[in-house]
Amino acid sequence: MYDTARANGAGVLGMRYGIEGLFEEKLLDLEPELSSPVEVQQLRQTPSSYLGSCRYKLPRPEENEEPYERLFSLFERCHVAAVLYIGGNDSMDTISKLSAYGEREGSSIRFVGVPKTIDNDLYGTDHTPGYGSAAKFIATSVAEIGRDSSVYDLRNVTFVEIMGRNTGWLAGSSALASQENAICPDLILLPESPITEDVLTARVGELLGQMKSVVVAVSEGARRPDGSLMAEPPTSAIKLDAFGHEAALSGASRYLASVVADRLGVKTRAVEFSTLQRCANHLASATDLDEAYALGGLAVRAALAGQSGVIPAIRRLSDQPYVTEYITVNIADIANRERKVPLDWIREDGMGVTDDFVRYARPLVQGELVPLFVGGLPRHIQMLTWGR
Amino acid sequence: MYDTARANGAGVLGMRYGIEGLFEEKLLDLEPELSSPVEVQQLRQTPSSYLGSCRYKLPRPEENEEPYERLFSLFERCHVAAVLYIGGNDSMDTISKLSAYGEREGSSIRFVGVPKTIDNDLYGTDHTPGYGSAAKFIATSVAEIGRDSSVYDLRNVTFVEIMGRNTGWLAGSSALASQENAICPDLILLPESPITEDVLTARVGELLGQMKSVVVAVSEGARRPDGSLMAEPPTSAIKLDAFGHEAALSGASRYLASVVADRLGVKTRAVEFSTLQRCANHLASATDLDEAYALGGLAVRAALAGQSGVIPAIRRLSDQPYVTEYITVNIADIANRERKVPLDWIREDGMGVTDDFVRYARPLVQGELVPLFVGGLPRHIQMLTWGR
Repeated sequence: MYDTARANGAGVLGMRYGIEGLFEEKLLDLEPELSSPVEVQQLRQTPSSYLGSCRYKLPRPEENEEPYERLFSLFERCHVAAVLYIGGNDSMDTISKLSAYGEREGSSIRFVGVPKTIDNDLYGTDHTPGYGSAAKFIATSVAEIGRDSSVYDLRNVTFVEIMGRNTGWLAGSSALASQENAICPDLILLPESPITEDVLTARVGELLGQMKSVVVAVSEGARRPDGSLMAEPPTSAIKLDAFGHEAALSGASRYLASVVADRLGVKTRAVEFSTLQRCANHLASATDLDEAYALGGLAVRAALAGQSGVIPAIRRLSDQPYVTEYITVNIADIANRERKVPLDWIREDGMGVTDDFVRYARPLVQGELVPLFVGGLPRHIQMLTWGR
Repeated sequence: MYDTARANGAGVLGMRYGIEGLFEEKLLDLEPELSSPVEVQQLRQTPSSYLGSCRYKLPRPEENEEPYERLFSLFERCHVAAVLYIGGNDSMDTISKLSAYGEREGSSIRFVGVPKTIDNDLYGTDHTPGYGSAAKFIATSVAEIGRDSSVYDLRNVTFVEIMGRNTGWLAGSSALASQENAICPDLILLPESPITEDVLTARVGELLGQMKSVVVAVSEGARRPDGSLMAEPPTSAIKLDAFGHEAALSGASRYLASVVADRLGVKTRAVEFSTLQRCANHLASATDLDEAYALGGLAVRAALAGQSGVIPAIRRLSDQPYVTEYITVNIADIANRERKVPLDWIREDGMGVTDDFVRYARPLVQGELVPLFVGGLPRHIQMLTWGR
């Protein structure tokens, strides 16, 4: 985005902490920060959000117009021609509202969304930048943990907990860890495919009759048929965040590890990938990074061409060879919907994904970024302004 | 080891699940498994123990001679000229006992230990193979988590839990994550430097006055001055494993996250690296892998030269440039002792390590292995026999 904007002679302001920072006018000129191609390249190799993020939800203008008035007056004051907002479903909600308000008010400012979320739950695009890199880390780590779990000559079950509140895209990607003659993980629990403790325990027991170590990938949002989360405590009161999502889940792996240890009398272990799966840039997918870079550039191009209320997106033409084209989609058509794993990509027993899922995900993890290593460690870009 | 043995015309049997598997005669000829240099290279790139491991402790022969009689009769039956045993302190205890027994009985079999443990707690060697790679993963991941923790404009504290029951070598290695103008982690808690919740909370509070996000690396063995583990529950009954170690710790990060959240009213998060830190081969240190390969070869050479009751070890001649030499050490001098982080390498406030520690650890994480990627994922070697 920065490169494309600069190449077209536009100045670029960075929005610190998203829309929330914008209310405090936390804007910074990115030119001194990204003063050479080396800095831009380092930015590509730096994990997590460089500019920061927020969890603020814009009210609808019918409810409260004041935030809109403040933001649009700031945009005018800063001579903003276009606002580009990077993120997942929540960010698309924000940019969609700003775009609609701008259109209603006859503003000439263009609003463009830029898809980027490891959750991969956005409509209108084959997949979202961020997903491929998270999938690569998850599958690699599950394969490594699978090796580790078979070190002792001891029956054991490992539960690996993977992000995904309502969708199993990330948990499903662990299926890529299998090699031809080595299946790993043995089972995958996705939010789309509810299950009971009884069914799971019975299946794990069966598997332990055939092998000594069983690996189960568990989505943090794995559920029972009654909709309750497969976590302790069994859903007494569910807390919701500003976007109406259930807040900070955790515990599916620990809960299941204790259930299975109790019922089957085997050694169990719970491993949580926690935030590592969204920030392990050292194992990013080159395909993912290239697509993120391209989509960002296309977002800038759309804005420069006068488009508003759109996002650039990816359409897949073929899995093998992997061929895609870039398209533009109206934000209004995709905001506030959550794309789930298709049910026919989930194994019949509900505890794994099909070859179709693997064919979908495999191209997205291809290629490696060799990070810039300094002193033996990947070097990240540091911000000169508001560094910490 | 395999290469050196083969180059010297020796056959190599693999011991499945260490000494425990040996009692069940789980031995396999490694030649069909490692039939070409490609397999040997893949073995270098495969995480965790290829042959498996155990937690069995040999009794002293004075207590029970029967295990020794069984093992030595097996060795004779299989025409074993030398037994090489790879591992940390516990494995050195095993090979030391076998060696002493063999000597007493006038056996011609040579017994050589091969140091390999991420714990880095072995005497007689500057460091142990395994440590550098674990340190590289830990420091990289702590740096990435540090970036992730500052994404929101929100005061928060992240506790990252790192292995190390009695020594802070691994927790201390997180100090490598710092860049010139970006300190990360802010605090490190090591087992060697006891601390109270009060002191820690006060220091975290101070830091939150200067920055919005604080990262604390916590050894799983972090302790209070009374020796109790900084984990919930506060040490009622400590379980010991066969080697007399306190069993399966976990919980320091979760415990401290809850203490600090309660007392300071800030958002906290606990991240456990769990087994990933010992099996994340995709981020291995090239220096570490090269030294592991060399030490293994030297162990074989020592055995071929008729040495017994020894281990090959590393002596450091200089930090910068990093220069070492390989030496041979008597196992009896180093077995059953635990090398701790020197107290003068711990910061005066007890919550970090000094530049001396960093100078020690930095060379060990240098260089990267580019794994063999197949289908976007690192490819691990599969065993033909007793695969799972």
